[in-house]
Amino acid sequence: MSDNFWAVVPAGGAGTRLWPLSRAAAPKFLHDLTGTGRTMLQATVDRLAPLAGDRFLVVTGQAHLEAVSAQLPELDPARILAEPSPRDSMAAIGLAAAMLERRDPQAVLGAFAADHVVTDPDAFRACVRLAVEVARDDWLVTIGIEPTYPATGFGYLRLGDELSAHPGVYVADAFKEKPAAEVAADYLVTARYRWNAGMFVVRPAALLDLLADSHPDFAAALRGIAAEPAMLAEVWPTLPRIAIDHAVAEPAGAAGRVAVVPGSFGWDDIGDFASLAAALGGPDGLKVVGDHARVRAIDATGLVLPHGDRTIAVIGLDDVVVVDTGDALLITTTTRAQDVKAIVAGLRESDPGLT
Amino acid sequence: MSDNFWAVVPAGGAGTRLWPLSRAAAPKFLHDLTGTGRTMLQATVDRLAPLAGDRFLVVTGQAHLEAVSAQLPELDPARILAEPSPRDSMAAIGLAAAMLERRDPQAVLGAFAADHVVTDPDAFRACVRLAVEVARDDWLVTIGIEPTYPATGFGYLRLGDELSAHPGVYVADAFKEKPAAEVAADYLVTARYRWNAGMFVVRPAALLDLLADSHPDFAAALRGIAAEPAMLAEVWPTLPRIAIDHAVAEPAGAAGRVAVVPGSFGWDDIGDFASLAAALGGPDGLKVVGDHARVRAIDATGLVLPHGDRTIAVIGLDDVVVVDTGDALLITTTTRAQDVKAIVAGLRESDPGLT
Repeated sequence: MSDNFWAVVPAGGAGTRLWPLSRAAAPKFLHDLTGTGRTMLQATVDRLAPLAGDRFLVVTGQAHLEAVSAQLPELDPARILAEPSPRDSMAAIGLAAAMLERRDPQAVLGAFAADHVVTDPDAFRACVRLAVEVARDDWLVTIGIEPTYPATGFGYLRLGDELSAHPGVYVADAFKEKPAAEVAADYLVTARYRWNAGMFVVRPAALLDLLADSHPDFAAALRGIAAEPAMLAEVWPTLPRIAIDHAVAEPAGAAGRVAVVPGSFGWDDIGDFASLAAALGGPDGLKVVGDHARVRAIDATGLVLPHGDRTIAVIGLDDVVVVDTGDALLITTTTRAQDVKAIVAGLRESDPGLT
Repeated sequence: MSDNFWAVVPAGGAGTRLWPLSRAAAPKFLHDLTGTGRTMLQATVDRLAPLAGDRFLVVTGQAHLEAVSAQLPELDPARILAEPSPRDSMAAIGLAAAMLERRDPQAVLGAFAADHVVTDPDAFRACVRLAVEVARDDWLVTIGIEPTYPATGFGYLRLGDELSAHPGVYVADAFKEKPAAEVAADYLVTARYRWNAGMFVVRPAALLDLLADSHPDFAAALRGIAAEPAMLAEVWPTLPRIAIDHAVAEPAGAAGRVAVVPGSFGWDDIGDFASLAAALGGPDGLKVVGDHARVRAIDATGLVLPHGDRTIAVIGLDDVVVVDTGDALLITTTTRAQDVKAIVAGLRESDPGLT
């Protein structure tokens, strides 16, 4: 791997459907959701370190700066950027791109969210290596995950023509929003669609130039902050709240400027507890993430997260989800895991300290 | 009501199937299971006070003496008897009978467990009043509860001939152990059977004389303790561990000495959480015993006891049972409520502090 690949890790997102584990004050990426002993943020850094060495930029909210720094003690504190306020992924990744553009015009950045899981990191890194090669030709490269089921919770990419210079890499033909179930089933059958995991590999200047095509003021503002970091606090609040997909990837895709490296490495964004249960794999039965000795089960299947200080007994329930924390307890089923957001919405009104 | 009716309240029993609320150190009778604001022990005393005034003898374990006294501050401490060790109901009620026999030969005692619920206390007291009248004729009187469903968790009494001196009162023809489901259904159809709630009304001397018929040493030992209370610690461990039903009621029944006052006053012994859910009545939906504000539900029915310090969210589960305490959490369904005892049995081996 060349020594100018930089890993940009936006560490944000609330993970509302993972309440009561994920909270505004301690969101998903700060947690060890899968029981590996490393938080999702740490696992993301672990996964990229063989490619990036110490060339990381982690972009997080001011509120999480201390927790992120504590979880990544080996990282130079200057490599952890604090957003004054949440402005969505374009601002976060764009700020990192603008800083890298000044630091090393030959750099290639790869942006990878801090709250995804990958079960085959070798295969993941092989994809990223290929994506870096393609990105040097000024493509905006995204990694398109091979669908393993007709997911309705992810956006999709459609593969177009293969790149002649890069066999096995394709032009992105279209970006598709989260589909209906029948549409997702069609996507799976045609084999032309890949999950959009929001992983982008690109030269910083190429990314900012693409942004400048659609949002010239936005690109100029980001470059301005990089030139004059003292301007951050003043300029940041004026930046648009927009995802990188909408700000750059979709317009660039329409212009034929996005390449897709297909990948298959056990990826999931663990959007809810059903997704977590599936990602854990293993035999049926009651899966426990945490201290197994705390959980007693009779005829039960599903998922238990014993993050409180209690012994938990589960009897005669299938596909149950039990998440026990110090101040809140969730009991649902994998099929209703999406509805957790409704509980959180209710608590935000009445009991915001619990959200 | 005559002024020599004494209420004898055995306050014992573990309530294992009500774990994790009921514990060895804080058994069922010390809890407000139904959310009335009074514990089962307090409710038992409240229910009997209009008949007994301050003529109570509460018999409990040494380990619970302090808690029982604290819950019954209006009761003369001398009226709370501590058993040196658990010897089952014959010893507990027999000790009270022996003390009352010496105190007032004309007394009638009524023994009522501290951990049952009665939803119609007026009807209950009317039955007890009638039972006291019958007991004066030297019957061992028991109250036979009209079955409302084919219960397999209770023993049954079969009604024999009506007493000529007491219309509406019957000789007990037979005692039946907890029946199989088909047998219980037959019992319900014939209308000759009543639930044996273990409520006995009797003259102390009559009770001890009946005991002397089958267990002369036992009766003599109890009378010996009453004559010489200092002997309690020495004699108590030698007493047989036997329930009053087996020691006295069944032999007396076989001898035609037991009378049954039929009753119907919303009785339940709340043996498990399914029984508690049924006893709470009210509309379907998620019943909460405790602070309703702590529980958030979407599409859920069943029972939640929020005895911990947490907010509890329940989504998409029917007939669920959730019991949250400071150190243990139970999640099951009303149909599996009996299996709680298996969890407790397992914990007794590995984690006795939780049982």
